[in-house]
Amino acid sequence: MEAAIKTVVSVFLKSSKGKENLGGKEFQSLVKSQLKNILTGTEDNEAVKNMRQQLDNNEDGKVSFQEYMNLIGYLDAFLNTFQNSPYQRSAWHFVNFISKMH
Amino acid sequence: MEAAIKTVVSVFLKSSKGKENLGGKEFQSLVKSQLKNILTGTEDNEAVKNMRQQLDNNEDGKVSFQEYMNLIGYLDAFLNTFQNSPYQRSAWHFVNFISKMH
Repeated sequence: MEAAIKTVVSVFLKSSKGKENLGGKEFQSLVKSQLKNILTGTEDNEAVKNMRQQLDNNEDGKVSFQEYMNLIGYLDAFLNTFQNSPYQRSAWHFVNFISKMH
Repeated sequence: MEAAIKTVVSVFLKSSKGKENLGGKEFQSLVKSQLKNILTGTEDNEAVKNMRQQLDNNEDGKVSFQEYMNLIGYLDAFLNTFQNSPYQRSAWHFVNFISKMH
């Protein structure tokens, strides 16, 4: 559990450089570098931008630590739902999945 | 990263039995079973109750998934601050630590 906590939090802090929010470019770099083994199509900037907009509850254009933690919850639900369908685990499908969970 | 996400989320869902909130007893069982290797004194029900109250932002007596995710962030900060002071990693000290971060 301790290792899992450190991994999840450090992924955020590495991309935010210690700040409390991720800007658009920082979020893009987080998705491309850290989620590329989880989702396909993370190179698609338009999909990543849509993902950020779905997560950005307070619509300030950034992803806060709380909003990132929501991402973790969505990713877990997405992975559980499509664990046997690797071809469905794309960034765009995930955007659609989040939009239905709101 | 995928394994870390699954660990962090499944710890919550295991204790909540799939529900969106942890009641007092469920939170107690989560702390006793999952955080005992991270914090000392997790057997102290009074400390655990205080921890729950510090996390319970909307004061409904329960710990929601979002409030649990805040716990993960606090734990990471706590562990980083006291990584070289294992004797300071107690449940009561953590309660005090959270109260100062609000």
